[in-house]
Amino acid sequence: MSRLARGDRVGSRTDTVIALDLGGTKIAAAAVTRDGTLRDLTVRPTRAGARQDARAEAIVDTLAALVHRLQHRVERRGARVAGVAVATPGIVDRASGRVRFATPALPGWSGLPLRERLAAATGHAVLVANDGHAAAWGEWTAGAARGVADAVVLTLGTGVGGGIVSGGRLLDGALGAAGRLGHLSVAARGRACWCGGRGCLEQYASGTAVERSARRARLGLAPGRRPAAQRERAGWTAADVVRAARAGDPDARRILQQAGTALGAALASLVNVLNPDRIVIGGGLAAAGALLLEPAECVLRSRLPRLLAARTAVRRSPLGRRAALLGVADLWWRSRTP
Amino acid sequence: MSRLARGDRVGSRTDTVIALDLGGTKIAAAAVTRDGTLRDLTVRPTRAGARQDARAEAIVDTLAALVHRLQHRVERRGARVAGVAVATPGIVDRASGRVRFATPALPGWSGLPLRERLAAATGHAVLVANDGHAAAWGEWTAGAARGVADAVVLTLGTGVGGGIVSGGRLLDGALGAAGRLGHLSVAARGRACWCGGRGCLEQYASGTAVERSARRARLGLAPGRRPAAQRERAGWTAADVVRAARAGDPDARRILQQAGTALGAALASLVNVLNPDRIVIGGGLAAAGALLLEPAECVLRSRLPRLLAARTAVRRSPLGRRAALLGVADLWWRSRTP
Repeated sequence: MSRLARGDRVGSRTDTVIALDLGGTKIAAAAVTRDGTLRDLTVRPTRAGARQDARAEAIVDTLAALVHRLQHRVERRGARVAGVAVATPGIVDRASGRVRFATPALPGWSGLPLRERLAAATGHAVLVANDGHAAAWGEWTAGAARGVADAVVLTLGTGVGGGIVSGGRLLDGALGAAGRLGHLSVAARGRACWCGGRGCLEQYASGTAVERSARRARLGLAPGRRPAAQRERAGWTAADVVRAARAGDPDARRILQQAGTALGAALASLVNVLNPDRIVIGGGLAAAGALLLEPAECVLRSRLPRLLAARTAVRRSPLGRRAALLGVADLWWRSRTP
Repeated sequence: MSRLARGDRVGSRTDTVIALDLGGTKIAAAAVTRDGTLRDLTVRPTRAGARQDARAEAIVDTLAALVHRLQHRVERRGARVAGVAVATPGIVDRASGRVRFATPALPGWSGLPLRERLAAATGHAVLVANDGHAAAWGEWTAGAARGVADAVVLTLGTGVGGGIVSGGRLLDGALGAAGRLGHLSVAARGRACWCGGRGCLEQYASGTAVERSARRARLGLAPGRRPAAQRERAGWTAADVVRAARAGDPDARRILQQAGTALGAALASLVNVLNPDRIVIGGGLAAAGALLLEPAECVLRSRLPRLLAARTAVRRSPLGRRAALLGVADLWWRSRTP
């Protein structure tokens, strides 16, 4: 009689976590209730203001401003903000909420006590998690990896992030650095990476890599050819390349195919290391769909024993940018459950 | 007063598991008591008889004969054999004890209901585990990975095996195929592997790969040069190469250095995927020691952010062939604990 249905706990159902997902290019934010309902999705550029300010302080200010804005909306609905959950690139010490190490594309982010800073700026209890971990957890709890015990999630954005769920547990690693899947090498003598590695997947299958390939295809390989296109395409984004490929541009298709081939080689290694039931591909570049994933799956399946090839499903993320927001909010709630 | 000390349970302390470790070249066997004491270490060639018989039936017969021989010794000591634990190459369904898939070097091994066969031949309760998983568990419970939460173990033998402990749990993967670390690729366009992959670590840093390099160094690259050595070295084993390198042979040293370089590239990828506290290198080729591990560590450390390089320790297995025996015996005991 008095038994409550799931999610019905009095005073908690409309409790809300403000979730933030910091990317190299954009920051996404949303209000997520305890039962995983996401509202008020908001997207801002990471580099704020006219000076394209990428200093850590400027980014923390932008994050805090987003929290205040969303809190206002949540409270106008009569709901309560229970806390703030942030997904960020870099190696995160989840216990202290400090960013141990991050890409130089986010100056000052390495070593930043992000939880402390954001707690001071917002007055809320803050949880910080790596963005790939958050996306993996989101896919596992609410997306394409739901219902399986072992999943690998890759997010192909400005950089390449990732997260691993094995036996139903999110892998953290010794320092919180498990799942740096963008730095799995596909070629021991391949392209140099900012991390010190060579042949890192991020150098082949990230938005940044696709943009560099787009520049090279016009500027490097065919001097004197298509000068108008050359000028026009020098500033192309990965999204432009995907659009051109969809419209049938053979160079754009080739660029995505090359990215997909590198992705497939990395996936084959990941299957051999982790043997997931399911691999989920998210991030902005996943918008390329089959143009990227078909060559990836082709390489993946040709390089595995039949048994493993047949039992590894590759899916495009159905959640998109909501994956990391839902995941990091769920991690916040779980961190509060004794 | 009546409280029993750890391991003192009446009638159990001297209970013994017969542990078997099947390799591509040798089978090791031993009697392991519940408290992890290993006795009666015995080694036999995998290929039995004058015809070098590698059929599954012949190997199962050899395994069963080893069980009977060790059981006799255990019972002569007045102890009781509680069961049999087998570490085998290949993907193992631990629930059924069936080998799902194995290297073609063990004909008939893929699909073999090994637990059923060995239980029928010995009358004992049998547990079957992948040999790399068993070695990893052995290192984690009793070897170089003791005391850390996250460890990766590679066994460089005839092939390359591996096992992963993450957050104190042995990773199985969806089909029991996690930890196929010999098939992590270090070069997307590298050497073809029997598994279908390209650039698999096993093609560079296994005993088999070192033997092939030894043949090539004499026969392929320097026609007409050192004809006597050519004949002499055509049949060299990896152990011969290690001995020659220790004695200062520059070609043998170069071969081990090349294997170590490939190993280092694979380790860098593994750190980025799994972020272990400790990496343990075992298997016959680990006898090369610094000749193999120094170039590996050099590549590993040069290719990681300083934070990760500083916090990842690489150790040579102190247990050697006892790792898989101790590990698989411990897995047997744990499988009996509700």
